[in-house]
Amino acid sequence: MSKRSRFKHKRMGQVGDIPGMIRVPDDALKPKISVYSYNADEVITSTGDEIDVIIKQFDKCKCHTHWIKVNGLGDATLIEKIGDLLKINVLVLEDITNTHQRPKFDEYEGYFFATSRIIQLSHAGDEMLNTQFSAIVKDDLIISFQENYEDCFDAVINRLKAGKGIIRTGGPAYMCYALMDTIIDTYFVVLADIGESLDALEDRLYASADKTIMYDSQHMKRELIMMRKVSWPERDKINDMIRSDSALISTEVKTYLRDAYDHCIHIMDVIDSYKEITTSITDLYLSMVSNRMNEIMKVLTIISVIFIPLTFVAGIYGMNFARQDDKGHIITDNMPELYMHHAYPVALISMLIIAAILIFIFWRKGWFNRL
Amino acid sequence: MSKRSRFKHKRMGQVGDIPGMIRVPDDALKPKISVYSYNADEVITSTGDEIDVIIKQFDKCKCHTHWIKVNGLGDATLIEKIGDLLKINVLVLEDITNTHQRPKFDEYEGYFFATSRIIQLSHAGDEMLNTQFSAIVKDDLIISFQENYEDCFDAVINRLKAGKGIIRTGGPAYMCYALMDTIIDTYFVVLADIGESLDALEDRLYASADKTIMYDSQHMKRELIMMRKVSWPERDKINDMIRSDSALISTEVKTYLRDAYDHCIHIMDVIDSYKEITTSITDLYLSMVSNRMNEIMKVLTIISVIFIPLTFVAGIYGMNFARQDDKGHIITDNMPELYMHHAYPVALISMLIIAAILIFIFWRKGWFNRL
Amino acid sequence: MSKRSRFKHKRMGQVGDIPGMIRVPDDALKPKISVYSYNADEVITSTGDEIDVIIKQFDKCKCHTHWIKVNGLGDATLIEKIGDLLKINVLVLEDITNTHQRPKFDEYEGYFFATSRIIQLSHAGDEMLNTQFSAIVKDDLIISFQENYEDCFDAVINRLKAGKGIIRTGGPAYMCYALMDTIIDTYFVVLADIGESLDALEDRLYASADKTIMYDSQHMKRELIMMRKVSWPERDKINDMIRSDSALISTEVKTYLRDAYDHCIHIMDVIDSYKEITTSITDLYLSMVSNRMNEIMKVLTIISVIFIPLTFVAGIYGMNFARQDDKGHIITDNMPELYMHHAYPVALISMLIIAAILIFIFWRKGWFNRL
Amino acid sequence: MSKRSRFKHKRMGQVGDIPGMIRVPDDALKPKISVYSYNADEVITSTGDEIDVIIKQFDKCKCHTHWIKVNGLGDATLIEKIGDLLKINVLVLEDITNTHQRPKFDEYEGYFFATSRIIQLSHAGDEMLNTQFSAIVKDDLIISFQENYEDCFDAVINRLKAGKGIIRTGGPAYMCYALMDTIIDTYFVVLADIGESLDALEDRLYASADKTIMYDSQHMKRELIMMRKVSWPERDKINDMIRSDSALISTEVKTYLRDAYDHCIHIMDVIDSYKEITTSITDLYLSMVSNRMNEIMKVLTIISVIFIPLTFVAGIYGMNFARQDDKGHIITDNMPELYMHHAYPVALISMLIIAAILIFIFWRKGWFNRL
Amino acid sequence: MSKRSRFKHKRMGQVGDIPGMIRVPDDALKPKISVYSYNADEVITSTGDEIDVIIKQFDKCKCHTHWIKVNGLGDATLIEKIGDLLKINVLVLEDITNTHQRPKFDEYEGYFFATSRIIQLSHAGDEMLNTQFSAIVKDDLIISFQENYEDCFDAVINRLKAGKGIIRTGGPAYMCYALMDTIIDTYFVVLADIGESLDALEDRLYASADKTIMYDSQHMKRELIMMRKVSWPERDKINDMIRSDSALISTEVKTYLRDAYDHCIHIMDVIDSYKEITTSITDLYLSMVSNRMNEIMKVLTIISVIFIPLTFVAGIYGMNFARQDDKGHIITDNMPELYMHHAYPVALISMLIIAAILIFIFWRKGWFNRL
Repeated sequence: MSKRSRFKHKRMGQVGDIPGMIRVPDDALKPKISVYSYNADEVITSTGDEIDVIIKQFDKCKCHTHWIKVNGLGDATLIEKIGDLLKINVLVLEDITNTHQRPKFDEYEGYFFATSRIIQLSHAGDEMLNTQFSAIVKDDLIISFQENYEDCFDAVINRLKAGKGIIRTGGPAYMCYALMDTIIDTYFVVLADIGESLDALEDRLYASADKTIMYDSQHMKRELIMMRKVSWPERDKINDMIRSDSALISTEVKTYLRDAYDHCIHIMDVIDSYKEITTSITDLYLSMVSNRMNEIMKVLTIISVIFIPLTFVAGIYGMNFARQDDKGHIITDNMPELYMHHAYPVALISMLIIAAILIFIFWRKGWFNRL
Repeated sequence: MSKRSRFKHKRMGQVGDIPGMIRVPDDALKPKISVYSYNADEVITSTGDEIDVIIKQFDKCKCHTHWIKVNGLGDATLIEKIGDLLKINVLVLEDITNTHQRPKFDEYEGYFFATSRIIQLSHAGDEMLNTQFSAIVKDDLIISFQENYEDCFDAVINRLKAGKGIIRTGGPAYMCYALMDTIIDTYFVVLADIGESLDALEDRLYASADKTIMYDSQHMKRELIMMRKVSWPERDKINDMIRSDSALISTEVKTYLRDAYDHCIHIMDVIDSYKEITTSITDLYLSMVSNRMNEIMKVLTIISVIFIPLTFVAGIYGMNFARQDDKGHIITDNMPELYMHHAYPVALISMLIIAAILIFIFWRKGWFNRL
Repeated sequence: MSKRSRFKHKRMGQVGDIPGMIRVPDDALKPKISVYSYNADEVITSTGDEIDVIIKQFDKCKCHTHWIKVNGLGDATLIEKIGDLLKINVLVLEDITNTHQRPKFDEYEGYFFATSRIIQLSHAGDEMLNTQFSAIVKDDLIISFQENYEDCFDAVINRLKAGKGIIRTGGPAYMCYALMDTIIDTYFVVLADIGESLDALEDRLYASADKTIMYDSQHMKRELIMMRKVSWPERDKINDMIRSDSALISTEVKTYLRDAYDHCIHIMDVIDSYKEITTSITDLYLSMVSNRMNEIMKVLTIISVIFIPLTFVAGIYGMNFARQDDKGHIITDNMPELYMHHAYPVALISMLIIAAILIFIFWRKGWFNRL
Repeated sequence: MSKRSRFKHKRMGQVGDIPGMIRVPDDALKPKISVYSYNADEVITSTGDEIDVIIKQFDKCKCHTHWIKVNGLGDATLIEKIGDLLKINVLVLEDITNTHQRPKFDEYEGYFFATSRIIQLSHAGDEMLNTQFSAIVKDDLIISFQENYEDCFDAVINRLKAGKGIIRTGGPAYMCYALMDTIIDTYFVVLADIGESLDALEDRLYASADKTIMYDSQHMKRELIMMRKVSWPERDKINDMIRSDSALISTEVKTYLRDAYDHCIHIMDVIDSYKEITTSITDLYLSMVSNRMNEIMKVLTIISVIFIPLTFVAGIYGMNFARQDDKGHIITDNMPELYMHHAYPVALISMLIIAAILIFIFWRKGWFNRL
Repeated sequence: MSKRSRFKHKRMGQVGDIPGMIRVPDDALKPKISVYSYNADEVITSTGDEIDVIIKQFDKCKCHTHWIKVNGLGDATLIEKIGDLLKINVLVLEDITNTHQRPKFDEYEGYFFATSRIIQLSHAGDEMLNTQFSAIVKDDLIISFQENYEDCFDAVINRLKAGKGIIRTGGPAYMCYALMDTIIDTYFVVLADIGESLDALEDRLYASADKTIMYDSQHMKRELIMMRKVSWPERDKINDMIRSDSALISTEVKTYLRDAYDHCIHIMDVIDSYKEITTSITDLYLSMVSNRMNEIMKVLTIISVIFIPLTFVAGIYGMNFARQDDKGHIITDNMPELYMHHAYPVALISMLIIAAILIFIFWRKGWFNRL
């Protein structure tokens, strides 16, 4: 269980920090920069880890759209330099490095800023990684930031290189859409994985109701709640982009955003269904445990109750009532049954009959039926 | 239980696909095309499985309204060809083949696109089929798509052939309304079936509360939740159509849509009532099981408690306290009761009295009353 | 319990029916028509069961407002004839005969259409009747439809005949208000009845918590949910009427409607209070049952536990440890207690002391206190 | 418990009454009228129980603002006369006498009408009184109605007589605000009382969890729900007054009303906190009862289980297996333990060891820990 | 547990007080005044406890922005004097001293008034302090009020003295933002503390489920609810400030406020997550307690049930059935087993076999599995 990971909601920075102050956590990765400059005809790629790579590319490709892809946020100075180069508000830079943003869309003079959450399964497959994606879109460029080096956008890069669709001609806002749409697509992958786990969980539930089912169900519920918390503002963000009157987002891109909006709604539908399934698994588990416990207690109690009168009868004939005559001989008139012929087998048979009657009564009352 | 079927929410397509890419699942059925061209005077029908059948019909019937009915979505090329012929946006074509759309209404330049969910009982009657219906309405034609070959719209075809009502003169938007209204009507059929199952379930509950009632109740609740998820956006869609200022939807058609809107609200009312009934069945079941269990435990415990003092008394007189005189004869002054005349019947009667007193006390306290 | 009655939500008509088709259920009552034509001076009344009675009254009373009251909807032809005479949309006629409408207010060219639900106690008093009232208001007439022959509107007819208030001069919209206000007034009657039942139920709960309390509470809750489902859209309907800019509804009538609106809100308040009371009754019942059960089990278990050590002691002295000398005489040194003087009374007293100690301990721990 | 009082939600009047009909309950108190005529310089007071007192005061004080205070609504004729004198709509008069109004604000031509609910502790302190306050504000007068003779507004009268603040110069709307603000202030008093009761309840809960805690908690919850039902529309009413464009409410008064609005919100906050506390008390109570019961059952069962094997051992050595030689002497080789030296003490010690082992095992498993 | 502290919601003042009356609680601290007058070049500081210190500073620093910081509200006269000096509405002064305000933003002629709640851990760390911060912003000054002497704003003062960022040039509204942002930052500190406590609580839960977990979880839930009640209106307040068209709040400050708005939303997200965790801890605790109890009862009952038949067998052979011949010798044909060779070991072995069979059956049924 990865419960710990979700408890760390501490915001970077300290009480009373100057707003817009860029603080980088100690364990942040060193940035790697890739620049893709493309137009209808070609894609020119450079990579590096200094701001020079961007400036050189700008000089080289004057009639291109640029996609600057930054992986790793571990260098405050670099990010400040990028901010200076592109004339970005310090609050935006703070939001880029403070990786606990909800998905949001903010418009500024001459550019817009959007964040998403990338939800991925870890490579081990047993944990969900929730990292931040942020992008700034200006006239002829988009710059995107990721916390780590995960290759989420390989499919987009391939399409860009292959020149499929309108990706080379759609401008930076279309590229921004393409990246966000890819992120939303990964949500479906994660949900499919959760769906399979729920499937397996339900199978285990019907096979044997052990305690881990409850824990796992709670665990999945928390993951779903987390996904809901991500996809809800994601939907709002896309809606904000659709309703924005920014010149950067063309009508055509808005048509695509509407499609992404539908996907968000679909994701939230699936999450809701899955949450209901986890709830119903928990309820069923509790009811099965309680039923099984009741079943056990019932059987045990019935066994006890059948033996109790028999033991009582045995106790009766274990009593020492006796009369003795003068010679110390027992006179058989005080507990005469004890001294009768065949009294013992008769007693045993009586006990059997008592047991049989009790069993019959309990059976008639339906107490042997499964609950 | 058809739980599996509802877990497959995987979206067709893969992460990073080009938006508007048409992917057809492997098990999709081969399309069958029927074209109904009609005006006030006549209905001309053609069927086929190639796009030619549409083109020919267009040539033949120039003053008709066309209803192109496509059953089966298993041929991506055909759907692309239809898209080219009618000049439909690729995102719309993607939505038609990606059969997990919520009901929605989208307006485009010169046409509108609407989807519904068809909810039907399977022929075996033990499962609910949730398939997609989508329709594009242009100036003089409507093209509808279904996932399978089910004959949901026979009633509409019959009305069309008989020329009843305004169906031949109402234009393609009225035809779209007629198809959607038919789909909503089938919801009533499905709900009536669920209502009867709930009736039967309640009868079974009062007859004998076994575990399957809980499972069946949960199962029905999920079906109702699924129907609610379908009818809620269905209502919104119809509302969008009513509020649309598209020239394709006349005021008269809007009057009919308002009627369909009322039906949706009625459906949601019924679904809510049924959900409450499933909840109350579950609650009653749990309370009955708990009551029955309590009843059993109470009876068993009362039986035990009545016998415990009796067994104790028998234990007392099973003790071996004895004094012997020199000759090994027992002197009767240590447990004198044992040696008294009629001590044994007196002991038995005492036990009976103890039992009677206990029973009387428990009866006075009302412990024999049913809970 | 009248649970069955609420399961029948099947809509009249069949899948694919022409919209506006009037279908009359087989058990619908034959219509009876009463026409009240009134102005400030007089009220002229005719009754009959054919449309002629309306036409004749129209001819006779040209300067009157007409209230046509139709009880029973069992004659599709008659309703169609009325629709033709008054030029009513077929969808309205369908809504009149399909008696599962929610309260609603629809405006049409030259008239408006409103429905309400009449909630009444059956004459036996053990069931709630939920029937449909619908009214069409035109320039100088109002036509009202009821499912049955119940005399809900006697008070209005009396006021009309007596000429009290502005009923004769307020026009058809005021008459429509008067009828709807009377319907809302009956809700108060029904709620007062439910309030008394809840009172009685609470008394029974405190007297003795038996299972029927739970069933009755559930039953009342369902009735309240049903009433809430009726009064919620009723409120919306009245609000729609207040906000309507139809010339048929004067400002004065709107003042009265606002009063009716307040009544609706009051009704919903009362319903909510009552629902909370049913919930709290159920909770209290469950808690009392559980407490009583716990109480019983506790007492029984305490009795058992007190006797268990006693029985053990008796078992000890029922053991047959013995040493015999050569002559078969028992040597008293193996279980010496058995052979001591007064050993038996000492044993009995020891048992008493053990029991007393146990009872004292349990009492100190507060286990004899009521839970 | 004052549960009864809250069940009486029957509206005055009968089904089909003329709207605006004034019906006075039989137990309504006879009205007492006080008239306070004030301007910046003086306050002139008259009291009486007839309308004359108002008319005379009007004649006498022509340049004053009048506050007519009516306590008791038991005289329909008087109220009608007042209505005639001040030209008030009959619906308003009906609302004044039908004392089940929610707080509301209605504007009429030339005056406005507002109602509040006065929540007070009864003099005995064990019940909450929920009575109606209503006020009509016209150009130069305010007339207020209360159901009873309680002196809620003494503080206002004192301020009026002392001429503190702007009460003499603020006009009738300010007086209306002052009265309503006083009513809201009493809510704080009632809430403080409930807060103390909750405090005491929690103390009792931790001291000993008996059944009355549950009842009292339910009782307080109902009182809080009732207060919430009153303060919610109270807030809406004040908001309506703030947003009103009536000339009667000056901007200055609106500033004060905003203050009252904040108080309402504060009250609702406190109510919500208290409701959460009642819920948590109930939950804690249930959990404590269940824990205590479990604790008792556990201890009892452990005692039983420790004695069961001991009793079994005693049972073993109570068996009568024996071999006799020809002379009736018992041969000691069938149950040799019985005849061994020191067998009895050994048996007793074995039993002790068995008990000790069981106790050790249970202790190791942590079963003696408090739950 | 600090439950008491949250019960005291009594509003200062008494029923019927003049609105705007300043009442100071007896235990309020004596005010300390610090005045910071700053411009781009310098910061001039004075402190004192009389209004003179403000007046003097005003005289001395005519081209500065003033931040008047008042700690402690225990002097009604002083606050009235400040109100007179700055021409503040008495209602505002009342809100400053009545320290139960929700965060709010009110605009007045020439100034605005805003309140926040400062949530801090007490120095002992075991309690949360919820005190009021209020600020009035005018053209060239901001005056802030705190209930106590806590140094929450040291970081801001340090920034002011160091002249970092735009704090010296941003005007009083920016200073107001800086103070409120610092307050919001402390929420993160408190939440981080709660997060660690939840972490520890979950660890304790998995280690051993004792009753204090439930209490602590309830306690934390209440703290979270309190924080939610504070941060919700805080968010609304900031939103109101962003939407305000007051000339006092420049566009640049609004950009910063949007950042603070995002922080509020983030805080509410964290609070919601934590509330879910407390709920899930409570649920898990209850389920674990119930499971453990069930486990104990099951084991105990199984032990009982195994011994019951054995004890019965022992009871059988403890019966005294016997026949004696004339000489008082026992004839071995009545309970022949008793007199057979090796009967005793056979009996013991039979008992072992019975126990083994029972254990085997229970094991096969899975009753030894952990629940």
